[in-house]
Amino acid sequence: MRTVEEHRAAVLSLVSALPPVTVPLSESLGRVLAADVVAAVDLPGFENSAMDGYAVRAADVAGAAPGSPVFLDVHGDIRAGDTRPHELRAGAAMRIMTGAPMPAGADAVVPVEDSDGGVQRAALTLAPDVGRHVRRQGEDVRVGDVVLRAGATVTPGRLALVAAANVPDVAVAPRPRVVVFSTGDELVPVGLDLEHGQIVDSNGSMLAALIRAAGADLVGVGHLADDVAAWTTLLERMPGQPDLILTTGGVSMGAYDTVKEVLTETGTVDFVKVAMRPGMPQGAGVVGESRTPIITLPGNPVSSFVSFHVFVLPVLRALAGLDPQVPLVEGVAAQSWSSVAGKVEFARVVSDDAGVRLSGGQGSHMLGALAEATHLAVIGEDTTEIRPGDPVHLLPLVGQD
Amino acid sequence: MRTVEEHRAAVLSLVSALPPVTVPLSESLGRVLAADVVAAVDLPGFENSAMDGYAVRAADVAGAAPGSPVFLDVHGDIRAGDTRPHELRAGAAMRIMTGAPMPAGADAVVPVEDSDGGVQRAALTLAPDVGRHVRRQGEDVRVGDVVLRAGATVTPGRLALVAAANVPDVAVAPRPRVVVFSTGDELVPVGLDLEHGQIVDSNGSMLAALIRAAGADLVGVGHLADDVAAWTTLLERMPGQPDLILTTGGVSMGAYDTVKEVLTETGTVDFVKVAMRPGMPQGAGVVGESRTPIITLPGNPVSSFVSFHVFVLPVLRALAGLDPQVPLVEGVAAQSWSSVAGKVEFARVVSDDAGVRLSGGQGSHMLGALAEATHLAVIGEDTTEIRPGDPVHLLPLVGQD
Repeated sequence: MRTVEEHRAAVLSLVSALPPVTVPLSESLGRVLAADVVAAVDLPGFENSAMDGYAVRAADVAGAAPGSPVFLDVHGDIRAGDTRPHELRAGAAMRIMTGAPMPAGADAVVPVEDSDGGVQRAALTLAPDVGRHVRRQGEDVRVGDVVLRAGATVTPGRLALVAAANVPDVAVAPRPRVVVFSTGDELVPVGLDLEHGQIVDSNGSMLAALIRAAGADLVGVGHLADDVAAWTTLLERMPGQPDLILTTGGVSMGAYDTVKEVLTETGTVDFVKVAMRPGMPQGAGVVGESRTPIITLPGNPVSSFVSFHVFVLPVLRALAGLDPQVPLVEGVAAQSWSSVAGKVEFARVVSDDAGVRLSGGQGSHMLGALAEATHLAVIGEDTTEIRPGDPVHLLPLVGQD
Repeated sequence: MRTVEEHRAAVLSLVSALPPVTVPLSESLGRVLAADVVAAVDLPGFENSAMDGYAVRAADVAGAAPGSPVFLDVHGDIRAGDTRPHELRAGAAMRIMTGAPMPAGADAVVPVEDSDGGVQRAALTLAPDVGRHVRRQGEDVRVGDVVLRAGATVTPGRLALVAAANVPDVAVAPRPRVVVFSTGDELVPVGLDLEHGQIVDSNGSMLAALIRAAGADLVGVGHLADDVAAWTTLLERMPGQPDLILTTGGVSMGAYDTVKEVLTETGTVDFVKVAMRPGMPQGAGVVGESRTPIITLPGNPVSSFVSFHVFVLPVLRALAGLDPQVPLVEGVAAQSWSSVAGKVEFARVVSDDAGVRLSGGQGSHMLGALAEATHLAVIGEDTTEIRPGDPVHLLPLVGQD
């Protein structure tokens, strides 16, 4: 029986990083930068006013105060967006708007609130220090500065910085292309009437959601009956040029495990038992002329969900050029539960300020507990009992914001 | 001068909740449920096997053990998806696959691992308890059970549960439709060469990202020169049938504040000062025949970003039928900083296990600090000094996962 680490290494050996892609900044929200972003301009790009008011030489209004104004002639207006060169004459002021370029010779701004608002001649009642209400060129960012590092996720605030730095496109981690096929004659699409013995194909919907939440592109999703000829044809010519194929079901020890039957014949896919619960029956390899990586997940929805987080998510991250391992976080058990010896157990748990608790029944068909889980608790193969207060390693679930 | 709470109440008074929308389950990921979800089927839907093996009457294999097998005739196979009725004869076994319906009369399953795998006659080496490896109908969920409550966000695990409960469509909070116009003659689209005095229009990109991250739909984004006629025409016939119009810039005390000039004339928009920093100049009201709500944000990117979180986000949430107030979280200051008296200060901070620190320079033109911030620290108007160890109220930023 393989260990979890051995099987994860095996699936990771099937893939290598896809090249980064360049996207317009407007499409970069939520994506991971694949290269540093370097400012194309200074921020601010030029010395400008932080207030609506009057650009002055500080020395010219040195004595101004409320009740004893200094009067200056106003030699024109400078508004934001004014691209003309201006020069402030000694002993004069110019009206200036927030963000407008400072005229040559001026070294401070008197806010309009500290004036009579005069247009031809203004009474100023404040004596600003040199540099007051003036934003210096490059005081926030210098042209050539690295403003964001590779590996950063693009948030609205970061996007604003990149835009202001006049960088219209960014290199980001690619979205791997994934196809998903659920298998099993018992599966029926959601919303139809069920005959006795049939169940809804929830795996397809669930994996589609997990793939999207993990930042990959779902380029095909379907259900395939347990039909050897159909499977064989499909594998020869897989639509959608996927980087990864996922299947669910048909891989355990049963007599009608079509996926296993077909893929065993290709000779390029290994079916193994992994010392974990749930999710013991696993398969991985490559198929077709393109030697596309394939991971075969168990058919139980909970096993499939756990296997996605343990094996598929690292593969998607590796394809995207990211560190395959999602860092574990630490929690503290708030209840006791038992765990099987000899296997790593991935318990569905809720972890919050009240500690770590099982989120419900732990059967591999129990979807109620899956729905409320926030993490998978990773319980080592030598641990058979969790007690309140014990530290617990937690794998965060994708799509939990 | 208005308080933050007064102005928030004023903008919230402009909107009421839009009706929920029904979407296919496949499009529900990340959305907020607007109604409880009720199971349409039992889960499991029928008594079925948890293992590949043999369906038996437990009493028939009572003495079985490794080394002393019980031999039973095998009366056929039941595979997953078999919709025929089956009955197990006394003293016999049926091969059964994981997920397949239990035959009438059987009350336990012997896993194939505890057998010789016989097809006509099987040697069984395990004596299961009644019910062993049998999943009972409805043991996870009963038809009619509420499986998810209104207000829950749809995660991959929840989506799996809803699919399995055979519910193909769900009612979710609507996405408000928003248009954004940045104003100011000094603004240039990202990626073009800048003349002296021009800056990149980062507000448009930033607000587009904030709107998407907040779960709303951006139905129009543009830049408008400081041109009264163009503004007047636009307001009369706003494209995109928005639920909310946002503008940035042109609302402070300057002589060329076109937004303020045009909207003041309509008589339906109030321009006010709010006792906050940054973000003092605010405006809100309705425009056009459709009386579409409009919020005018300051032109400084940081002021605009803060105003979005303080006023626009609550409005978007109210439009979506959600509680307008995003809950504050609590942090502990890890450094000291001063805050202005008489105004609520929204400091850009990083909050993590090391405590709350300013994320950089706090000028309203400082985008570097905005890019790395995780929260806004809400510093009350009576607080002028934050010291290490002080509790700090934090507003989470949207789009930080």
